Amino acid sequence: MTDITTQIDTHLTSNLTRYIQETVRLCAQPSISATGQGVVDCSQIVAALLEEHGLQVQTFTGYGNPIVLGKCPGKSAKTLLFYNHYDVQPVEPLELWTSPPFEPVERDGKLYARGVADDKGEFIARLAALDAVCGKEHRKAAHGGGRLNTTELPCSVLFVLEGEEEVGSPHIARFVKDHVKELTCHGAVWEGGGIDPEGHPGMTLGYRGILYVELAVELMNRDAHSGGAHSLPNAAWRLHRALGTLKGTDERILIPGFYDHALPPSTKDLELFEALPDREAWLRQQLGVKTFVNEMHGRDLQKAVFNPTCNIDGLTAGYQGAGMKTVIPAKATAKVDFRLVPDQDPDDLFMKLRSHLDTQGFSDVKVTRLGAMWPYKASADDPLVALTVRTGEEVYGKKSLIDALGGGSSPAYAFAKPLGISVVDAGIGYWDSRGHAPDENIRIQDFLNGARHLARILEGFSM
Amino acid sequence: MTDITTQIDTHLTSNLTRYIQETVRLCAQPSISATGQGVVDCSQIVAALLEEHGLQVQTFTGYGNPIVLGKCPGKSAKTLLFYNHYDVQPVEPLELWTSPPFEPVERDGKLYARGVADDKGEFIARLAALDAVCGKEHRKAAHGGGRLNTTELPCSVLFVLEGEEEVGSPHIARFVKDHVKELTCHGAVWEGGGIDPEGHPGMTLGYRGILYVELAVELMNRDAHSGGAHSLPNAAWRLHRALGTLKGTDERILIPGFYDHALPPSTKDLELFEALPDREAWLRQQLGVKTFVNEMHGRDLQKAVFNPTCNIDGLTAGYQGAGMKTVIPAKATAKVDFRLVPDQDPDDLFMKLRSHLDTQGFSDVKVTRLGAMWPYKASADDPLVALTVRTGEEVYGKKSLIDALGGGSSPAYAFAKPLGISVVDAGIGYWDSRGHAPDENIRIQDFLNGARHLARILEGFSM
Repeated sequence: MTDITTQIDTHLTSNLTRYIQETVRLCAQPSISATGQGVVDCSQIVAALLEEHGLQVQTFTGYGNPIVLGKCPGKSAKTLLFYNHYDVQPVEPLELWTSPPFEPVERDGKLYARGVADDKGEFIARLAALDAVCGKEHRKAAHGGGRLNTTELPCSVLFVLEGEEEVGSPHIARFVKDHVKELTCHGAVWEGGGIDPEGHPGMTLGYRGILYVELAVELMNRDAHSGGAHSLPNAAWRLHRALGTLKGTDERILIPGFYDHALPPSTKDLELFEALPDREAWLRQQLGVKTFVNEMHGRDLQKAVFNPTCNIDGLTAGYQGAGMKTVIPAKATAKVDFRLVPDQDPDDLFMKLRSHLDTQGFSDVKVTRLGAMWPYKASADDPLVALTVRTGEEVYGKKSLIDALGGGSSPAYAFAKPLGISVVDAGIGYWDSRGHAPDENIRIQDFLNGARHLARILEGFSM
Repeated sequence: MTDITTQIDTHLTSNLTRYIQETVRLCAQPSISATGQGVVDCSQIVAALLEEHGLQVQTFTGYGNPIVLGKCPGKSAKTLLFYNHYDVQPVEPLELWTSPPFEPVERDGKLYARGVADDKGEFIARLAALDAVCGKEHRKAAHGGGRLNTTELPCSVLFVLEGEEEVGSPHIARFVKDHVKELTCHGAVWEGGGIDPEGHPGMTLGYRGILYVELAVELMNRDAHSGGAHSLPNAAWRLHRALGTLKGTDERILIPGFYDHALPPSTKDLELFEALPDREAWLRQQLGVKTFVNEMHGRDLQKAVFNPTCNIDGLTAGYQGAGMKTVIPAKATAKVDFRLVPDQDPDDLFMKLRSHLDTQGFSDVKVTRLGAMWPYKASADDPLVALTVRTGEEVYGKKSLIDALGGGSSPAYAFAKPLGISVVDAGIGYWDSRGHAPDENIRIQDFLNGARHLARILEGFSM
């Protein structure tokens, strides 16, 4: 280890208890964006924590829940942006929690609380990393009530914390567009990542976009007796037929032009898939799957992430209770999401979907756009990616597992494109962190390692 | 009019108030088979009413709710069976009733109560008809405490009242099979029928059968994040594809052998359709329909009742709340009913459906049979049909409107086939009786006419 990494690790180990206390303080504050509970109070704690760590704080309203920015200039001309969110998922079902979700508690080397992994613990680990790279003396100055001597920071940093990530980040893209100048930076570290059961750090080069729509059919003003089904139109069948035009049994989406901008995986991406563990057996065991899509096996299950999807999220029509009721449903709806690969554009595809349904004779099928995110993907050869991988392997002593593309979606695109930067993830969660579920937790050791990793990224990024 | 019809009409007019009082008494007793409320108490009132009208009563248990039989021998060798049910539909939504559903009340020449049209009023009108054809003297004897002098009845009569019609008559077929001897008769009058807005009496020559199934697909042990849709199986799509094999866009059902036993309408049936009023405009106005099945118009909408149907009654999968949730549904179900024409057999078709799904590769789609009824249809030339039509036209002074086949289903088959009889309907409801709905009602004049009609059928049947 170099002098600086020794100094970093010493600082973090010596001050771990204090950072865990800060995590407890933040996690004790509910901040459920789905209901609004505690969100504003939590944004104030976030602002206070940033200030206490020597950052200049600005809170933005007018973009849904408050967005909190923390800035600190550094030695080099470069700025690294940290994205986090202070909102959390709802806590239900409450009865499945071993201890109350907003009463953080340590058990067996783990810290349990709603949001501790997703994503409050990560935020604190980043503050810890910041302290660590500034050196002991400066930390003292900061905690003496004065400002941190920021000239010691290897590069400028910019924290962005939003409070709506768990409800789909509906305002963050507009916020970034409106503040491109203030957000100018040279790379960003996203939330997420995490450690697999064998101790490998994980990272994802990007996320798929999404177009989420509701298809609705209404053919009568009320449900009718099914004895009239020979003549009265059935909304469920009509919806069925409209859905049937969307994709073939081979899963290929049939909307004309759907694949126009879909990029295939690069040679490097395909190499990355080969380096990942085969997750087929795990998926079978976890989810009880017998047959996968297109009867795929092995690593094909992962590579298929480069196939955009058309997924039915929900179907609603007619009678859904026990037993029988003979009814022709007047209305039927389907929730459908399309996961998009680079460089597909949900705006473009929404228009193509509408046009396709019209062409197929389904202009009576109403399409409502419920949400959209764009795909984002870093190149496997990106320097920030390489730095994150190298430092991760140094901290964890194991090879990084790199997903060329995550299956889900994220607002990373909202930063990457307008700011012209790459986005990487480097997290503190592990395979059993139970994000969004009861008994959400982190391992204290992962918190420490996450901070060590971040501090090394900070150091390396400035060079 | 003949002497006898004059005598009948005089009796009914003179005693109308008393019969309405009996109807009130019966309707004041709740008897909701869906919940069980008051059903047994109501069966006892039915038994008492039959006894008071001079019939020998037997109550059968062991077939779900009590089945009440009333018998009375008559002069001729023939027996006419009356089918009625004493159970009623639930009363919700209660707030839409002008007066409480079980507090029968007369307003503007109408009697309002749950069950007054479907089917308690009809039962009382039949008792009234019975009294009327026996003559005044015999009625007096009956009400003096003794038995009615039944030798005056023109034919033997047999009342069958069940208490499960509103929940699909699950036990009546077995009851009839077990009691073929006791139920021996030469024809039956069903519930139903009724008067259209122009005052024409209506009758239906038969009813379609039904096979009601639930298709269920379960491909994972829990819902998964839709970010995995490129590899994880989606139960809603799987169900969608299974449903897609059931019928073509032309509404033709694709199950091999489905139409093997489906009889086309007879020439006489087709003539009957031509005599019916065109209901297209009415359907458009009532239900807000823009386009009917197969873009049909006019009387084709009615003739199509001879096309068996495959109707989706309900669809359930995944997320059905407001907004978006990104989920791959682990389970999906569809409720589907097939309406069957003579001589299709739901037992046969259930096996063909299962076999079809297996052949099409959908052995993972579970098919649960929720209910079945067989089709029944009288010939348009049947003597009991002719008698019912002729006497109806005599009473109402208007042409009978004869539906060659009703779109719905009924347990008439459960009597017709094992007893080797024809079944006709002759009711007291009218086009706005609101059966199954709030403010169910009959017009007092229709009650009187219904009794007059029944009495004439009784007289004519004995000849």
